[in-house]
Amino acid sequence: MLDFEAALARAEARVGIIPPADAENIGQFCRSDLFDKHLLSASSASSGNVAIPMVQQLTELIRTGAPGSEGYVHWGATSQDVIDTGLVLQLREMTYITEEALHNVCDTLADLCRRYATTPIVGRTWLQHAVPITFGLKIAASLDAMLRHQERLAELKARVLVLQFGGAAGTLASLGARGKEVASALAEELKLGLPSMSWHAHRDRIVEIACFYSLLMGTVGKIARDLSLLMQTEVGEVSEPHSEGGGGSSTMPHKRNPVAVASILGAAIRVPGLLSTMLVAAMSQEHERGLGGWQAEWSTLPELCTTSEDALETLAEVLEGLIVDADSLQSNLEKTGGLILAEAVSMVLAEKIGKHEAHALIRQVTQRASSESTNFRVALLNESAIQKHFSVDEIDKLLNPAHYLGSSATMIRGVLDAYESRSIQYAKDGK
Amino acid sequence: MLDFEAALARAEARVGIIPPADAENIGQFCRSDLFDKHLLSASSASSGNVAIPMVQQLTELIRTGAPGSEGYVHWGATSQDVIDTGLVLQLREMTYITEEALHNVCDTLADLCRRYATTPIVGRTWLQHAVPITFGLKIAASLDAMLRHQERLAELKARVLVLQFGGAAGTLASLGARGKEVASALAEELKLGLPSMSWHAHRDRIVEIACFYSLLMGTVGKIARDLSLLMQTEVGEVSEPHSEGGGGSSTMPHKRNPVAVASILGAAIRVPGLLSTMLVAAMSQEHERGLGGWQAEWSTLPELCTTSEDALETLAEVLEGLIVDADSLQSNLEKTGGLILAEAVSMVLAEKIGKHEAHALIRQVTQRASSESTNFRVALLNESAIQKHFSVDEIDKLLNPAHYLGSSATMIRGVLDAYESRSIQYAKDGK
Amino acid sequence: MLDFEAALARAEARVGIIPPADAENIGQFCRSDLFDKHLLSASSASSGNVAIPMVQQLTELIRTGAPGSEGYVHWGATSQDVIDTGLVLQLREMTYITEEALHNVCDTLADLCRRYATTPIVGRTWLQHAVPITFGLKIAASLDAMLRHQERLAELKARVLVLQFGGAAGTLASLGARGKEVASALAEELKLGLPSMSWHAHRDRIVEIACFYSLLMGTVGKIARDLSLLMQTEVGEVSEPHSEGGGGSSTMPHKRNPVAVASILGAAIRVPGLLSTMLVAAMSQEHERGLGGWQAEWSTLPELCTTSEDALETLAEVLEGLIVDADSLQSNLEKTGGLILAEAVSMVLAEKIGKHEAHALIRQVTQRASSESTNFRVALLNESAIQKHFSVDEIDKLLNPAHYLGSSATMIRGVLDAYESRSIQYAKDGK
Amino acid sequence: MLDFEAALARAEARVGIIPPADAENIGQFCRSDLFDKHLLSASSASSGNVAIPMVQQLTELIRTGAPGSEGYVHWGATSQDVIDTGLVLQLREMTYITEEALHNVCDTLADLCRRYATTPIVGRTWLQHAVPITFGLKIAASLDAMLRHQERLAELKARVLVLQFGGAAGTLASLGARGKEVASALAEELKLGLPSMSWHAHRDRIVEIACFYSLLMGTVGKIARDLSLLMQTEVGEVSEPHSEGGGGSSTMPHKRNPVAVASILGAAIRVPGLLSTMLVAAMSQEHERGLGGWQAEWSTLPELCTTSEDALETLAEVLEGLIVDADSLQSNLEKTGGLILAEAVSMVLAEKIGKHEAHALIRQVTQRASSESTNFRVALLNESAIQKHFSVDEIDKLLNPAHYLGSSATMIRGVLDAYESRSIQYAKDGK
Repeated sequence: MLDFEAALARAEARVGIIPPADAENIGQFCRSDLFDKHLLSASSASSGNVAIPMVQQLTELIRTGAPGSEGYVHWGATSQDVIDTGLVLQLREMTYITEEALHNVCDTLADLCRRYATTPIVGRTWLQHAVPITFGLKIAASLDAMLRHQERLAELKARVLVLQFGGAAGTLASLGARGKEVASALAEELKLGLPSMSWHAHRDRIVEIACFYSLLMGTVGKIARDLSLLMQTEVGEVSEPHSEGGGGSSTMPHKRNPVAVASILGAAIRVPGLLSTMLVAAMSQEHERGLGGWQAEWSTLPELCTTSEDALETLAEVLEGLIVDADSLQSNLEKTGGLILAEAVSMVLAEKIGKHEAHALIRQVTQRASSESTNFRVALLNESAIQKHFSVDEIDKLLNPAHYLGSSATMIRGVLDAYESRSIQYAKDGK
Repeated sequence: MLDFEAALARAEARVGIIPPADAENIGQFCRSDLFDKHLLSASSASSGNVAIPMVQQLTELIRTGAPGSEGYVHWGATSQDVIDTGLVLQLREMTYITEEALHNVCDTLADLCRRYATTPIVGRTWLQHAVPITFGLKIAASLDAMLRHQERLAELKARVLVLQFGGAAGTLASLGARGKEVASALAEELKLGLPSMSWHAHRDRIVEIACFYSLLMGTVGKIARDLSLLMQTEVGEVSEPHSEGGGGSSTMPHKRNPVAVASILGAAIRVPGLLSTMLVAAMSQEHERGLGGWQAEWSTLPELCTTSEDALETLAEVLEGLIVDADSLQSNLEKTGGLILAEAVSMVLAEKIGKHEAHALIRQVTQRASSESTNFRVALLNESAIQKHFSVDEIDKLLNPAHYLGSSATMIRGVLDAYESRSIQYAKDGK
Repeated sequence: MLDFEAALARAEARVGIIPPADAENIGQFCRSDLFDKHLLSASSASSGNVAIPMVQQLTELIRTGAPGSEGYVHWGATSQDVIDTGLVLQLREMTYITEEALHNVCDTLADLCRRYATTPIVGRTWLQHAVPITFGLKIAASLDAMLRHQERLAELKARVLVLQFGGAAGTLASLGARGKEVASALAEELKLGLPSMSWHAHRDRIVEIACFYSLLMGTVGKIARDLSLLMQTEVGEVSEPHSEGGGGSSTMPHKRNPVAVASILGAAIRVPGLLSTMLVAAMSQEHERGLGGWQAEWSTLPELCTTSEDALETLAEVLEGLIVDADSLQSNLEKTGGLILAEAVSMVLAEKIGKHEAHALIRQVTQRASSESTNFRVALLNESAIQKHFSVDEIDKLLNPAHYLGSSATMIRGVLDAYESRSIQYAKDGK
Repeated sequence: MLDFEAALARAEARVGIIPPADAENIGQFCRSDLFDKHLLSASSASSGNVAIPMVQQLTELIRTGAPGSEGYVHWGATSQDVIDTGLVLQLREMTYITEEALHNVCDTLADLCRRYATTPIVGRTWLQHAVPITFGLKIAASLDAMLRHQERLAELKARVLVLQFGGAAGTLASLGARGKEVASALAEELKLGLPSMSWHAHRDRIVEIACFYSLLMGTVGKIARDLSLLMQTEVGEVSEPHSEGGGGSSTMPHKRNPVAVASILGAAIRVPGLLSTMLVAAMSQEHERGLGGWQAEWSTLPELCTTSEDALETLAEVLEGLIVDADSLQSNLEKTGGLILAEAVSMVLAEKIGKHEAHALIRQVTQRASSESTNFRVALLNESAIQKHFSVDEIDKLLNPAHYLGSSATMIRGVLDAYESRSIQYAKDGK
């Protein structure tokens, strides 16, 4: 907010509305260390917002330190101009942090993707074993989503990172005919976009960035949820990096709880409610500046953004140190005695006897295997229709998960290609 | 949480599980001023919750101050036992505060109700003038809702204010066969209800109180919303009590913004999203104790409860100092030139010419009044069907808002009767 | 709504406002089969609600069938009176259905509770094995929650199942001084509670029942979520009752997807958002009757209630036919080679060497077992501190899940006692 | 979904996986009129989704009508492939409809903007009169927001309108090594984007479009809310276009309720809850395909999208026929006796006596005007400091709203410029 006040004074000096010397004086007192935050906080309640006591303190500081210049403080602006622009400046910082975190998490995901590109893992649908996939493919799906988030963030910045400046009711009448001129200079000073007009009560920009963080957190939460399921005692395919004393139980000596994943999930769960609040609060503000909705944003948006950012960084750490238990990956693939390759057998058999006949026959075999508590492979080899068309060797080849990975490699390659070209572009952009 | 640890030690001493002297020693160190809160906070992240570092600090304090007793700290309990019971103890305090605030707000509403029982005010539906009501009746509807909230709060306390005590996974196995005995003694020590079993992952009790505060805030927000509409410049029927410097604008000298009402509305807007988070977070916790959902409660429930309580208290202040502009009440009733009594005329005319004919005829008159920019009374007196059945005097009587208030007085009396009997009961209950 | 119109006519006849013969005529046409629903639906949009075209059709029917009586239709009522009271009558039916469904689900849970009261199962916290519990205890926690829901439903009925009757703006002015008299007779006719005044824009009653269904669905969803986790291929402890062709995959012959559980979860996920909509929509209605909020209720509340009711019934079916795989229960208990009893060993060791020393020592043993890929029992027996204090037999006894169930039986008994006394009461109440 | 099945067969024929003649036969039966929808609906519950019975019916149709080809139906695809791609095809239609509706609403807003560019209206903040603006500027803010929505919609299409095709668990293993080749041909057939891999359980694309509609509805709701406030009896600045019989009350002859605006608000209120459901449901789907979350999307997304679209079209109608009462605009500006220009006087006075002195002095004058129930102009002219610096003429000029509109015209021009360049581009794009 102080950056706004200083820039406003400079901009108004540039266009000749206030004297340059006064602008300079104002700028010298726009330092947060000079302010009494306790008083700011206390006065905000009765004032209705934090800008009024902030401007009062700034005025007092200048009245004492550079008497005569205090009359030019906050010239022509309204409280919401400084609060909203201050928010936008903070959101800009936030986007830098998020861009870097996204960059890191993409790098880590790409590493995992390459490392496990050909490592078979159980593909699970409806929380049931489906067909084999590779762990790299599972990771690639997350990387692919993160690339979309990078794209979204890049797109919304032009819309969101813009100046708020309209004066009392959006006309900048307090600056006579020179409002737009000041606005333009002010946007330049702050290196923010210059909108056609102020957007005090049209807050789709603010909610758009809330949507972005919510979507991002959706992906972060989905990854954490999958990890939590893979970490179950019965699955045991991955675990969190160990930290000394982390995740212990106060009573159970053997426990090593996935505390990082729990904290990510705890964050992800809170986001949809916060976003719905942002929508209700921000989008229905009355007339030129509303009543209540804006106030409701103040605690909601920062909570949504920082919660998301924290969770994204925690996820990055979990992924970087992720412990993958190769034995469990393998033993889980074998857990159903080959059932996980029922589709593989069915597709090949379909070429011999037709799709529906094959599907029905293999379904019978799977049910027999289940009811007789026997192995799918054994039940299969006992089936005359199978014996007729396939040798034992052929069946064993079909039952090898590594032979039924379809286009996994091509897909991973596609995602990595997209990542690599994106990544280079990011490096070139700088900030 | 320290109250829980002290009471647990006492309870276990009572049933003979730990030595009484050790229980006493433990109790002496269960004082929050002895604890390093910064360390607590810092350790909570890696531990996954605040109970583990709290128990560690307590243990260290006792190891130093009463060596030998530290081994009995937190005996048989799990982290969630102490955190949840600590929460319940806080919620109990909260309910006391809310009972008092509700009591006060009901008193104020009852006063307003009596004071304005017969004062006509525009009844508004669809944000349009409908028929006259009394300001007392408008208030009575709010009082009636508050009485229901008092009733709800009284009912839920038996369900919500109960002990949490189950040990690692709810069996209290760490206490052998004596778990229930300890639980019973512990509930007595803390004066909490004793549930049949622990409820670590069945959190309907917690969400029930969140529902209560959400409903309460719904009413608080509705009252604030109506006040905000009555405070509009064009309506001007009520205003907030003035506070020195409150509600001023940084640029517009004439502004006196309804800052208290705005803060109530800002709070009310946030509640539905917080409640939806509570539902998602608390109700879907996995198995015996979940992953992530519990964590999401930690910031959400306190925010929901304290936001609601603050807003309720702000509302009480606004209502106590509410400035009612009698002139505006009257001039708004007259604003439509009698249209607000179109139903009154129509109902009486219906007895002469039938309901639908009367409705249609009066509708025509209202439209004529509108299109000819004339007064409804004048248009009515010019209508032959009216002339046939009514004298000018009769019409003027019909057009007096005070004559068309129906059962307002009886209804207000009914609400006040309910309030008075309830109120006495509350006073008798004490706490 | 037609029940309302018929009862209104009877009530007004009883108190002498309309002639009894006309009331009887009106009653004869209040039959939904006489109405053109297509026209009703089409006219609702332009009218703004369904009551206006309904009253129009009813009037036309009577004008034709019993000319002269049509003038007394809907006498003194407003659209919201008939729509809201119609809603309350439907909610009353809904509560009957829900009471029965709750009754059934409690019976089924009680049966499961008794059947599996002593059957050990893995207790899981943080999605990790914690300590053994019994399957009966897991069920008892759900039964306990359902008993609370029964209690809540019983409590809210007096508040929610009440008449709505206020006329244009709540004063019943259209009935002169006799509004309350009609209201009283009308409530009697409909066997609904009689509130002190109308509650057109104070809709906490409506949202209270939405909260009830949301809480109930929270429990239903939690049970379904646990079942879905127990049904995972790697866990395999329970499965849905088989239905012919149900849960098959279009491509994978071996798949038997938990479709009933998925549909319950799909329903549970939708509820928090619907409840937040109800709160926003219903609680902030302006003045005497609002604009938009009421409209938003119309699709939201029925969806919330019927979705919940359907899911509750689906859950009842799943629980009734639940297939429990005793072998998996047992083999999962053994999966960690005894680690699940680490607390049991630690608690007993604590009595010999102190709590913290015991916890630390057993933690070391568990880590050694893990790092050396050996069995916890073996690692334990190799530990000198253990050898010093315990015989092999004692250790084996400690490692038996059936010996570490704590107060499970007492807790189950407590829940069943509550169920049994409640259940009898329900039977006595009848409806 | 049938478009998907037909295109899949063609694509597989193109790459040589199934015979072209069979593909043609399949295509001939992919006509929705051949299907028994009642059976589809009934079978969906037990199957768990609608694709399985749809594929069954299609297979039966072909078995009868083109025997031999039925074995190639749905070859290699999974249920979610066809359901999701079917959804994307519907969403594409939806975006066309929305683009057109947005186009229309922008045209109408631009017309209003030009027509009322210089018409003064009260600018309102905190629901209080602030300073004058123009009605055109108020409209321009809405147009500006709609232009952003057009931009967002254009951006998201490339991400959202893409093929879903992954087979059982995303690997397309059922198509051997040729999965990507088929995917590519299939995307071409359907004119959809081709993603790097399937996105069965990474549903940010779906939630992104839900976010878009929610943001759009936020703006629609904000406009409707402002209109509803301007339509209040006491404000009376605008009204809905009259429709015969629309908006009447069942009891109050004079009522003309804003039914269209109420229906828009009723829709807008439901959206935040629906979006929060979409986030919870869609973003947390487990592993390769989830359990419950996908099911929860099925009713939620269509409701969100169609509700939004309907409301947008209703808004377009309201705006097209909007009745603006010029007299009310003017009389409301005069309602405060000039107070609305307090800032104007203060800013000019500031140049003479300093900003804070001016603000304080004018605040005193406004308070005196209020407490003495006199006119601001009169109070101002009685003030010696004013008399000293200004003539009566100068004061009267300052108190003319038309002289205190600041940069309104420039801002409107800016928005219209953006609209015009955008609009041309849209026309050029065609579809």
